[in-house]
Amino acid sequence: YIVTKMGEDWIFLILLGLTMALVSWSMDYASAKSLQAYKWIHGELKGNVPLQYLAWVTYPIILIVFASLFCHLVSPQAIGSGIPELKTILRGVVLKEYLTLKAFIAKVIGLTAALGSGMPVGKEGPFVHIASICAAVLSRFMSIFSGVYENDIHNKDLLVCACAVGVATCFAAPIGGKSHATNQTQNPYGYTDILTVGCAVGVGCCFGTPLGGVLFSIEVTSTYFAVRNYWRGYFAATFSAFIFRVLSVWNKDAVTITALFKTNFRMDFPFDLQELPAFAIIGISCGFLGAFFVYLNRQVVLFMRRPTALTRFLTKHRLIYPGAVTLIISTLTFPPGFGQFMAGELMPRECINSLFDNFTWTKISDLPAPPGLGRSAAWLHPHVSVFLILLLFFIMKFWMSAVSTTMPIPSGAFMPVFILGAAFGRLVGEIMATLFPNGILFDGIVYRILPGGYAVIGAAAMTGAVTHTVSTAVICFELTGQISHILPMMVAVILANMVAQGLQPSLYDSIIQVKK
Amino acid sequence: YIVTKMGEDWIFLILLGLTMALVSWSMDYASAKSLQAYKWIHGELKGNVPLQYLAWVTYPIILIVFASLFCHLVSPQAIGSGIPELKTILRGVVLKEYLTLKAFIAKVIGLTAALGSGMPVGKEGPFVHIASICAAVLSRFMSIFSGVYENDIHNKDLLVCACAVGVATCFAAPIGGKSHATNQTQNPYGYTDILTVGCAVGVGCCFGTPLGGVLFSIEVTSTYFAVRNYWRGYFAATFSAFIFRVLSVWNKDAVTITALFKTNFRMDFPFDLQELPAFAIIGISCGFLGAFFVYLNRQVVLFMRRPTALTRFLTKHRLIYPGAVTLIISTLTFPPGFGQFMAGELMPRECINSLFDNFTWTKISDLPAPPGLGRSAAWLHPHVSVFLILLLFFIMKFWMSAVSTTMPIPSGAFMPVFILGAAFGRLVGEIMATLFPNGILFDGIVYRILPGGYAVIGAAAMTGAVTHTVSTAVICFELTGQISHILPMMVAVILANMVAQGLQPSLYDSIIQVKK
Repeated sequence: YIVTKMGEDWIFLILLGLTMALVSWSMDYASAKSLQAYKWIHGELKGNVPLQYLAWVTYPIILIVFASLFCHLVSPQAIGSGIPELKTILRGVVLKEYLTLKAFIAKVIGLTAALGSGMPVGKEGPFVHIASICAAVLSRFMSIFSGVYENDIHNKDLLVCACAVGVATCFAAPIGGKSHATNQTQNPYGYTDILTVGCAVGVGCCFGTPLGGVLFSIEVTSTYFAVRNYWRGYFAATFSAFIFRVLSVWNKDAVTITALFKTNFRMDFPFDLQELPAFAIIGISCGFLGAFFVYLNRQVVLFMRRPTALTRFLTKHRLIYPGAVTLIISTLTFPPGFGQFMAGELMPRECINSLFDNFTWTKISDLPAPPGLGRSAAWLHPHVSVFLILLLFFIMKFWMSAVSTTMPIPSGAFMPVFILGAAFGRLVGEIMATLFPNGILFDGIVYRILPGGYAVIGAAAMTGAVTHTVSTAVICFELTGQISHILPMMVAVILANMVAQGLQPSLYDSIIQVKK
Repeated sequence: YIVTKMGEDWIFLILLGLTMALVSWSMDYASAKSLQAYKWIHGELKGNVPLQYLAWVTYPIILIVFASLFCHLVSPQAIGSGIPELKTILRGVVLKEYLTLKAFIAKVIGLTAALGSGMPVGKEGPFVHIASICAAVLSRFMSIFSGVYENDIHNKDLLVCACAVGVATCFAAPIGGKSHATNQTQNPYGYTDILTVGCAVGVGCCFGTPLGGVLFSIEVTSTYFAVRNYWRGYFAATFSAFIFRVLSVWNKDAVTITALFKTNFRMDFPFDLQELPAFAIIGISCGFLGAFFVYLNRQVVLFMRRPTALTRFLTKHRLIYPGAVTLIISTLTFPPGFGQFMAGELMPRECINSLFDNFTWTKISDLPAPPGLGRSAAWLHPHVSVFLILLLFFIMKFWMSAVSTTMPIPSGAFMPVFILGAAFGRLVGEIMATLFPNGILFDGIVYRILPGGYAVIGAAAMTGAVTHTVSTAVICFELTGQISHILPMMVAVILANMVAQGLQPSLYDSIIQVKK
């Protein structure tokens, strides 16, 4: 009997992992193709600036408006991040139609369109939602199957009823054969378990970071956590991340399974102890900035709620708000226009890759571009200093991210905040590299400062501050594939958390408060 | 009021982290010096084999017998790993005199002596115990201080009594100012919290692996886990690991903060997808081997418990058993004797470093030693193949580790099992490197196989199987400072866990069962 239960447990986890990996991969593929088309059009129209501008602005507007319309028509529950709602469900509140197949479809289609538009919206939050729906639907599906199966063969067993009720119960059975309570008390737990595992899978297969995914979802959603779920989450998330990465190998995107935003810092001497104050400053500043981000995001939402003539008008014509926001943002990022001063041509993933690169931009800005610079060239303007561009990028993207996550489309805030943190860290890193052009002397050896390392630390600290979690450090390791900066990163993330937790609730709690 | 509580929380965590880092570092320093002296004597006596043998055997016997005697006289509670007992305490059972200063002293001195003898004993388990004592003693100490302080100023407050009772209670106050229950219900939780954090610090500062430490201690000790402890554990463990590593930088052992057993595998193509079956085989085999290790360890303990003439004699003369075991083990590892066929001259840490190295031993065994080979030369015998040496090492160390962890001294099993796993993984890796001498062809590019990577995966899988945890993978990343093998490692660890959990209880549960 236990074997059957365990077997179903495994089957469920494997199915969940497989489905989510496929969903994640196809969404990535579709949105990458869309971005490619976007850039291709922009490139083809070179020389004709008005037409280029029209294309640059129209493309995202169409996609965002489509996403907004689709969600509105199919399932309004698909709007937003999904983590706040899931947190509410896990606390025991029943939210209507939140875990249905309809919401799944709306979220997947809407998110793909939103990601394909190049707007600063993330996929992490919606992915948690998608995985949770997937888990809930799968468990319902398996309960039908197992119910019939169980009744036929094991109908003598006293606990069969528990199993027939659903895999939700079945799923909650401890693996080690520990004693478990009756059906009534088990059922709610089982559901929560499934959702928690779903969360873990969502985060894990979103970036291919199984460890960080499990930890992040624990921190974000739970107050008390059963260790047996931790195990299940690991299994499903690893399997899912594995399939996700294998798919990209098969598709010839990558040669083998490596990290998503692979960095290539030197291993022998990643940083000097005397650089630690700078890392601590990043941590503390990111704490303040993260809290401000949460505050700004809430203010935008509250403003939209206030009953003025403008908001009444916008509520009536639902598609105008996302359209207008997209218009403003894409106008500002238009590469031949203002976008040239804020690396506007870079899509979110390119931003991260270039911010994490191994060059010191202040040093190469006057020289001819070194080989392997790639997309990072967008940060180097012939007449404007790197600092100004980074600062402009940070300030502009800051409010853009805070505003665009309030659009009525499926959108997360994790990725945009991650980029903000990386830009801030890079800025500090470049300043440090200018202050100490030859590196810091220690023990007779001089090593150059790596601004890319600062960017990684900034990204982890900023996301940690906004979400009130420390596992962003783990996600960062898994994303970059390098663990050499572990201690300064932990220090920065913890400092950022201490500051941010004292000032503001986490972004998710803030949204829950606002929606009440 | 909340600020005071939070402040005390931080002070407590910082003090705990600081104390443990100092203890860990001084123990490491003392045991390293002892091992250095051991090897120096052995080296000085070269040429005079009988005298050399005498020194090789006497040195560990003296240390082990001293450790055993010291523990017996000061505090018999200090014997063994400590994790099983802690697990029992966390389940609510009161174990007498287990968290006293006496046990602390006995454990620290005894463990230093045991580690300095070069026997296959670990420091992880005892360190969890030491950190827990430290946390318990510190909390008692702070309760005296805070009790007086609180009563003087905040005596109007209704909940002051809760605080005056002890930091145990104080400590359990949620950081975010959540509602908390009355004194009676809070107290046990507070204590558990302290111990859990203590565990995390113990594992974290033992190897300088904060993340893995927190996760490992959660998995090993708890069934349900409060997320707020996770945060505290992170803070204390990071602080502790940080101080621990800074100390070694100040002592000029290391240039900067890097990983303990740093590996240097290529980053661009760490492994090929087609190597995955080999990794899966390592995982499954490690599952079986880990279960067998637990079984063997239990059989040895049960044999010693059986009332025969021999065991009666050994119980009477308590020092004979550890002495005899040490004699046999050190005789077998004597480098000019049998030890030459099992790399007997290597101390535990050297073993790990050499097993994780970047050379393919089967390829260099006939050539002159390449530069940078270092201690790995011990594995290359002029007349015996590398496979045989690795196999012999594995088999001999297997029973040695299982037996030596039953000696009445403070000793953990984590490190010995880690070494076993690394040796097994290396063996598979070397076999793979022989089967595919030029690497596996993929996509027109051929990359050599890295046996060191197999060793890392084997180590993680084996420790995972013996302890029934998956966080050993995280510990492995932090120890090696490279995360490139994350996915195969997770796969291997999960497979090992699936096999081992089906066959045997975890080592700690097995010890709890036996001791009942």
